Amino acid sequence: MARKKYYTVKWKRGKVSLIDQRYLPSKEIYRNYSDHREVVKAIRDMEVRGAPAIGVATALGIALGVSKLSNTGNLKRNFDRIVGQFKRARPTAVNLFWAAERMVRVFNEVRNKPLKSIKDRLIKEAKLIYNEDIAANMSLALKGHKLIKNGWGVLTHCNAGPLATAGWGTALGVIIMAAKKNKRIKVFADETRPRLQGARLTAWELMKHGLDATLISDNMAAHCMKLGLIDIIITGADRIAANGDTANKIGTYNLAVLAKHHGIPFYIAAPLSTIDPECKSGKSIPIEERSGTEITNIGRERIAPMKIKTFNPAFDITPASLIRGIITEKGIIKFPYKSAIRKLFRHTLR
Amino acid sequence: MARKKYYTVKWKRGKVSLIDQRYLPSKEIYRNYSDHREVVKAIRDMEVRGAPAIGVATALGIALGVSKLSNTGNLKRNFDRIVGQFKRARPTAVNLFWAAERMVRVFNEVRNKPLKSIKDRLIKEAKLIYNEDIAANMSLALKGHKLIKNGWGVLTHCNAGPLATAGWGTALGVIIMAAKKNKRIKVFADETRPRLQGARLTAWELMKHGLDATLISDNMAAHCMKLGLIDIIITGADRIAANGDTANKIGTYNLAVLAKHHGIPFYIAAPLSTIDPECKSGKSIPIEERSGTEITNIGRERIAPMKIKTFNPAFDITPASLIRGIITEKGIIKFPYKSAIRKLFRHTLR
Repeated sequence: MARKKYYTVKWKRGKVSLIDQRYLPSKEIYRNYSDHREVVKAIRDMEVRGAPAIGVATALGIALGVSKLSNTGNLKRNFDRIVGQFKRARPTAVNLFWAAERMVRVFNEVRNKPLKSIKDRLIKEAKLIYNEDIAANMSLALKGHKLIKNGWGVLTHCNAGPLATAGWGTALGVIIMAAKKNKRIKVFADETRPRLQGARLTAWELMKHGLDATLISDNMAAHCMKLGLIDIIITGADRIAANGDTANKIGTYNLAVLAKHHGIPFYIAAPLSTIDPECKSGKSIPIEERSGTEITNIGRERIAPMKIKTFNPAFDITPASLIRGIITEKGIIKFPYKSAIRKLFRHTLR
Repeated sequence: MARKKYYTVKWKRGKVSLIDQRYLPSKEIYRNYSDHREVVKAIRDMEVRGAPAIGVATALGIALGVSKLSNTGNLKRNFDRIVGQFKRARPTAVNLFWAAERMVRVFNEVRNKPLKSIKDRLIKEAKLIYNEDIAANMSLALKGHKLIKNGWGVLTHCNAGPLATAGWGTALGVIIMAAKKNKRIKVFADETRPRLQGARLTAWELMKHGLDATLISDNMAAHCMKLGLIDIIITGADRIAANGDTANKIGTYNLAVLAKHHGIPFYIAAPLSTIDPECKSGKSIPIEERSGTEITNIGRERIAPMKIKTFNPAFDITPASLIRGIITEKGIIKFPYKSAIRKLFRHTLR
């Protein structure tokens, strides 16, 4: 497995380097940004996407922005401006705000030190967030893969692979780990309209890792379940509320309802950084709406009549009651999530 | 409404004329075929699609094939060859077999008459099938539109409009009729991957008829239902078994499960020619599997890695228990469908 190396986003000689995911799978283009505003734009335009990867890119981007400041005049104001630019990039993934807040905390600790020290400390923190993300994902993969039995069919949605994180993956990390543990599994990837992260990214990653992968359209999932091809469904998450309600890529709620109807276990895999204990329920999670051209155009192809109205919510909310378990680096938590999440956070520094 | 005229398929001065639906909505290209094998190919390649339209194209195509025969030598063998070519074009839509069988019946009645009479009689029968299809669809639209209340949101899948029939439409015919009856309705059209009939055809037809139409990706339907945007779901059918199990475009079963979960009524609209009383249940309906390139390529765009495996069933089966009612030209029938269908066919000559 792991036939060929690639990386999602990392700190590289004073720059933020990332693979431009909009060109996958046909082209592997890496971008090296020395201006933090380019990183903000990369997040907004989805060159980098996936909640944990957005968090890591935010931390690295904030460190990058500060690293370019030439003096400490207006330091606080400049720092706040940089952080504000990231916070406006995308509204749903909580990891972005989580990573930004962590950088703010560290900045507040060191803001009166010499500029060189502040820069070094923020770069160090961003790299720590990067490394912690990989460690958390590996840990959750080791806990989660036990849910997948030998010979099973596994369905996943969107992309929650190495490309959605600093480098191991959440839902896809669990699936890849199961394969590494020598379980014969068949993976079904929803193509995930409108941006096709399943077709473009998950299918590509599954092949890179040598797994048995089959690509289907989103609307084929129910038929596959009825045929008995799917034994478990695992997806990632963009934000998990304190009661377990989960925002994830549009179509996830669809799968959760289908899973219930067919008696198939539906799991979320996400690091604790994706849980937002301040958010009481799914009702408080803002759902990003993106441009209708994501629906009406696919690359150079116009697939709908001109002037047709569209509705393009990028995420949906899966109620906690439809989720069999949430796989975290601290273990698999179960319904009722409210108490389980409160307990987790009591023992965990954020 | 009906801002601009277009037609699906018809007999035109000794030829079969049809709009090539593969180029919609960007180009309106009409083809005039004088060789029945071109019509067979048009059905196979989905220049013409939609169960009732496939039935009408089959009848017209068989008439065309016979009209080109120059003598009665091997007449029966030639006729059987033509019919056989159509029967192999697509396996799921029962209207194809229904129309072919009706042409066979008429041929058997007149086969000993002069060739000119045979040709005239078969052309007449094909035109009759064409006219009956329009009449049946108008009749079912007049019965079905009462299900749609003023101010409602209506979701439909794939294309069951005028383009899927000889000229009025089934599910979309019901919806268009509701609008004609001055009900303010909002129509949501699933784009319907992989071939995007919802985006390419339904959105186009809804705009042609001046309806309030919104295009969504298939995987957004559940989210829209949860938001309360959808009050009723109506789709067409490719084959309805004697117990009410219904084969329709892939993704229909998906919607029926979601409808049940959200307590939204789910209806099928189809003329009696789509009901196959010989077919006991959905288990006996063959599901066409089409090329994986329909999933991996959209027009000139390759959207998935090379060599990725695909699964591309063109239809799925919705069990009768998930269907609130079937809207036919003879009225709306309800569960249990077995007795209702038996009763309908007792009173109806096929």
